[in-house]
Amino acid sequence: MLIDSPYPKSFASDNHAGVHPDILKAMAAANDGDAPAYGGDAWTTALDGHVQSAFGPDATGFAVLNGAGANMVGLALMLGRYDAIICADTAHIATHEAGAAERLLGVKLMTVPTADGKLVPDDIRCRLSGVGNPHESQPRVVSISQVTELGTCYTPDEISALADTAHEAGLFLYMDGARIANAAAFLNCSLREITTDAGVDVFSFGGTKNGALAAEAVIVLEPSLSPGAPFLRRQSLQLASKMRFISAQLSALLTDDLWRTNAAHANAMAARLAAGLTDLPDVTLAYPVQSNAVFATLPQEVIPQLQEHFTFHTWDPAAGTVRWMTAFDTTPTHIDAFLTTIRSTLQT
Amino acid sequence: MLIDSPYPKSFASDNHAGVHPDILKAMAAANDGDAPAYGGDAWTTALDGHVQSAFGPDATGFAVLNGAGANMVGLALMLGRYDAIICADTAHIATHEAGAAERLLGVKLMTVPTADGKLVPDDIRCRLSGVGNPHESQPRVVSISQVTELGTCYTPDEISALADTAHEAGLFLYMDGARIANAAAFLNCSLREITTDAGVDVFSFGGTKNGALAAEAVIVLEPSLSPGAPFLRRQSLQLASKMRFISAQLSALLTDDLWRTNAAHANAMAARLAAGLTDLPDVTLAYPVQSNAVFATLPQEVIPQLQEHFTFHTWDPAAGTVRWMTAFDTTPTHIDAFLTTIRSTLQT
Amino acid sequence: MLIDSPYPKSFASDNHAGVHPDILKAMAAANDGDAPAYGGDAWTTALDGHVQSAFGPDATGFAVLNGAGANMVGLALMLGRYDAIICADTAHIATHEAGAAERLLGVKLMTVPTADGKLVPDDIRCRLSGVGNPHESQPRVVSISQVTELGTCYTPDEISALADTAHEAGLFLYMDGARIANAAAFLNCSLREITTDAGVDVFSFGGTKNGALAAEAVIVLEPSLSPGAPFLRRQSLQLASKMRFISAQLSALLTDDLWRTNAAHANAMAARLAAGLTDLPDVTLAYPVQSNAVFATLPQEVIPQLQEHFTFHTWDPAAGTVRWMTAFDTTPTHIDAFLTTIRSTLQT
Amino acid sequence: MLIDSPYPKSFASDNHAGVHPDILKAMAAANDGDAPAYGGDAWTTALDGHVQSAFGPDATGFAVLNGAGANMVGLALMLGRYDAIICADTAHIATHEAGAAERLLGVKLMTVPTADGKLVPDDIRCRLSGVGNPHESQPRVVSISQVTELGTCYTPDEISALADTAHEAGLFLYMDGARIANAAAFLNCSLREITTDAGVDVFSFGGTKNGALAAEAVIVLEPSLSPGAPFLRRQSLQLASKMRFISAQLSALLTDDLWRTNAAHANAMAARLAAGLTDLPDVTLAYPVQSNAVFATLPQEVIPQLQEHFTFHTWDPAAGTVRWMTAFDTTPTHIDAFLTTIRSTLQT
Repeated sequence: MLIDSPYPKSFASDNHAGVHPDILKAMAAANDGDAPAYGGDAWTTALDGHVQSAFGPDATGFAVLNGAGANMVGLALMLGRYDAIICADTAHIATHEAGAAERLLGVKLMTVPTADGKLVPDDIRCRLSGVGNPHESQPRVVSISQVTELGTCYTPDEISALADTAHEAGLFLYMDGARIANAAAFLNCSLREITTDAGVDVFSFGGTKNGALAAEAVIVLEPSLSPGAPFLRRQSLQLASKMRFISAQLSALLTDDLWRTNAAHANAMAARLAAGLTDLPDVTLAYPVQSNAVFATLPQEVIPQLQEHFTFHTWDPAAGTVRWMTAFDTTPTHIDAFLTTIRSTLQT
Repeated sequence: MLIDSPYPKSFASDNHAGVHPDILKAMAAANDGDAPAYGGDAWTTALDGHVQSAFGPDATGFAVLNGAGANMVGLALMLGRYDAIICADTAHIATHEAGAAERLLGVKLMTVPTADGKLVPDDIRCRLSGVGNPHESQPRVVSISQVTELGTCYTPDEISALADTAHEAGLFLYMDGARIANAAAFLNCSLREITTDAGVDVFSFGGTKNGALAAEAVIVLEPSLSPGAPFLRRQSLQLASKMRFISAQLSALLTDDLWRTNAAHANAMAARLAAGLTDLPDVTLAYPVQSNAVFATLPQEVIPQLQEHFTFHTWDPAAGTVRWMTAFDTTPTHIDAFLTTIRSTLQT
Repeated sequence: MLIDSPYPKSFASDNHAGVHPDILKAMAAANDGDAPAYGGDAWTTALDGHVQSAFGPDATGFAVLNGAGANMVGLALMLGRYDAIICADTAHIATHEAGAAERLLGVKLMTVPTADGKLVPDDIRCRLSGVGNPHESQPRVVSISQVTELGTCYTPDEISALADTAHEAGLFLYMDGARIANAAAFLNCSLREITTDAGVDVFSFGGTKNGALAAEAVIVLEPSLSPGAPFLRRQSLQLASKMRFISAQLSALLTDDLWRTNAAHANAMAARLAAGLTDLPDVTLAYPVQSNAVFATLPQEVIPQLQEHFTFHTWDPAAGTVRWMTAFDTTPTHIDAFLTTIRSTLQT
Repeated sequence: MLIDSPYPKSFASDNHAGVHPDILKAMAAANDGDAPAYGGDAWTTALDGHVQSAFGPDATGFAVLNGAGANMVGLALMLGRYDAIICADTAHIATHEAGAAERLLGVKLMTVPTADGKLVPDDIRCRLSGVGNPHESQPRVVSISQVTELGTCYTPDEISALADTAHEAGLFLYMDGARIANAAAFLNCSLREITTDAGVDVFSFGGTKNGALAAEAVIVLEPSLSPGAPFLRRQSLQLASKMRFISAQLSALLTDDLWRTNAAHANAMAARLAAGLTDLPDVTLAYPVQSNAVFATLPQEVIPQLQEHFTFHTWDPAAGTVRWMTAFDTTPTHIDAFLTTIRSTLQT
């Protein structure tokens, strides 16, 4: 459904964007002679400090190479051989990681239909009927995405309620934070308010979609879970030998809140796009715009016409729903050019 | 066993070195606006051309993030659920990938003791007695390392003989080429002579230890094996979203034979180091020096004294064997300083 | 939800029944001195003959120890590492095999909501949108249950239509035949008409629920799939050393159509039970009675009262749906006693 | 290497024997109307009592279907995702379970060469150098076989020493007890002296090779490990639905020490065979005879001649070593007939 286009700017994904100049600069600065491999370097030590500043003294960070890698390492910390994960049926781990959860973790995904990509406490409670039954996979982890795959955000209170429900049932709460920066920017809160303070046990801190080249981190907040992380990261093929260049990217994002600057900008561009659609009767928003994603429903025949000019994904071909993503480097000019094309295409 | 030292230069590993400036430059050049993710970009198309130039028109390359990742993706292409890999007991997949082969592939490693890290055809033949027996894992892949973990190299003829023996028995030949550049430089041959022309089915082309930041490739030479690679790469957590920055590194190495320049230089530094040891009666070479690794046996008490000044690994503490690695950025001055320290330490 | 009761007869499951006397007799007869282990015995050779008589000359049978074992061996024959199974969300492999599919096979289950436990061709077609996309698990097998977990049966034509749809898309058709005998008895057809002739590739032939002690078989109809079966059976812990006693059970069932006699009787008892409910306005059948299962919906408060007298499972507590199973040894007297209790309990 | 022969008696394996009449009788007696499935029956409750009598009040037993199944369930209780098992290179789990350990458990086997199939404490100690290193699989379980695959036995003191060494290093001790009865009979000790009292954490109690039809049990002695067993047994395809027939076999063996009677007899027959070989200069014992196995080395050309008359396995074709197994139903007449044939064959 992706059609390449010579025209800038891609609205297909925030990973079509390049690398933020400050991050590339930090990588170049790390290219300074020798450094111990696998995390024994000064840049990784510095990252440890950033992680504790952001998430509290009990937080431990493990830099990894991509988002699916972060999810598989983070989830493996909490899951035994006969366990199950409760997650939205739109969750990235359920739909777009090529079955890594089943093959690498060997566990069942108990997928939950949702209206907006968000779980509620009752979704957990009503999936506990098989607990203790040896014929059924045992729920062990509740996995949520912040931002969700539908562009929506959980409030801190919503996360706390899920954490409480999970913990009461003896389950852990995991958060896929590939776009956690966009969530914190939208909610106008600290990263800590939606993680440590909300009762999350383990989460991924996404860098790549927010201006990094290739850098994510597994952040472990429940200290009893961290000892396995170095082993599982290595075994899961997520340990970089020249680690300093991964750590430097994450530290750059965590320095002077670059993560927030980038995410807030991308969010603002999505809001500008959404605002420009309000007077178009043929275009409706499929979900509230709470991050850098705009899900819109259009007349189906218009979609390929638009894709002649701009690159983006069709989310649900039958419904005519498309996904438009913005990035740290999307500009008002890009948005306005896109809006102009949308308007003119709809009028023809 | 690794002791950090303020003194340059590390002899612990070629991954203590940084990134070659031309490679970093190529990465910066790739940071040019938008590009499709996951390999749909121009830099990956260019890499495809380099791969076919180097390895022939039937070769397909799949860029990945690290060496263990390349091994797991490459091996997975060839292995079913009840299969086994025949490899040296020193093989990286058997010793230093945290059991990834067992957990991610689920197969048995039939490990072979060797004198110098190299398999010979009889090592294959005498492990075929269980073929067809449902109680035993079935050998399916012979896996060799070029350069081996002991710094030695297979000649093209030796590889051909292994390929013939494997193929006659219905097995595939895989090559862990984390340091394949060093092998080709030492053998003074083309990359093709030790891969495509020698009958290798799948191999990894290592970039990280030869000056890249984090870039390897799975190269598939047996065309029937390539269709599964995109799926296995994604599922094995080895697909970069901003792929252009991985592809750009590999293309830089394959441009104007930068891979050979870097590797030949590192090899020459190892040779210089070995040459400087010849008149030291207390130091003996444990294996022939055929790459950028020098394995030397010293009086045990000398090792920690040396490690006060230089960083390197003790390979076999009981035997007093150490491993000294050189890199693309090791200089004659580094070697000579190291030799001076070795001499003075031995004399005290 | 299972409450034991001193009162005969259990309606909880057909595996609460014992062993049919002819089968026990066959096992005792096999206890005749020595016999080669692991299937090299005369009883297993005899079973091979029965399998070919029943399913055609291309059929190969592999006796195993239980139903989940048969499913895991049979499915493993067809599935690679990044594949998925399309099945009903009520499928035994999805709900009651403790996550064996995910852990042992490592694949995704694409579960389909159904009205009556049965898939239709469009359920397959609309799950093919991710074919070729490396981010998604690849559908490879359609798995149906005959009898379904809701007691319903596929007609031969319905199976053929699924097989055609699967094969056109390059998928295999697997059948969980834990109660295949009950299906053939209900449909009044041969076993072959709903397997070989309908285009099934691999299926399990269930013995245990139909009067055996512990005996099932994986039957491979697509000859290219059979070479892996001996290895996967052994590795999946489903190979009996004293195989003759497993083979003897299956041969007894396949001799003089004992399988049909047992299944037809159990079905008749379920039909008698269902017939006896027709004039009870508070009892409705949840699904058509097409085998040895009666799913009925009752006033919720009646269920525990009935369970004081008879053993059975509550299927859906919220809906007040219960499952009543009959077996080869259920008698009209058992049914009538049960009906009397149901009537008297409903009247109080 | 196995050649079938019309002549009784097979010396190939104790699983060529049939079922002891008392065990078959116990199974027939269990065929008494309905019984709850999956272990909720009276026979399984009775087995629980036998297990606690034999192994102490903290012991929990889980009946399973075969020896490899018992090993995989028992080991899974103790092993995480990045762990390793230290075992003899002759261990059944390493050589004859079709790679189940690697595929089902996903762990590395650190195999140890031994003279007689037995580990000693130093074998454990010298495999701990990678503990804490994220690049290496982490030793977690020491697995021994009692009787070993070479027919030898550990004394209670030898087991205690291994248990102490394992526990000091934070490892568990597992025992593959497929022939544990033969060991206790040879050592003239109780089952408890070589399990509970010796510090074993989990072991398998083998029934099939000692006169059962198909019945083994995982016995958990370290109470913290037992909660996972019901789930892992089910998921590992080792839970019989008509469990009473498995439990009845094991209870029969544990009643009036039938296990010892059977094992002591088989051992005596092996001793008689070994005694009859002492004056044959061309036959030497490869290992001490400490169970129901005789490993003998013969002139190679004699082996096929003997196999024309008697069924047995060649253990090491190059060395001319064969394995002769006796069973509960081997008689002195069988032994003497075999000895006569051996003598006459050697003389020709």
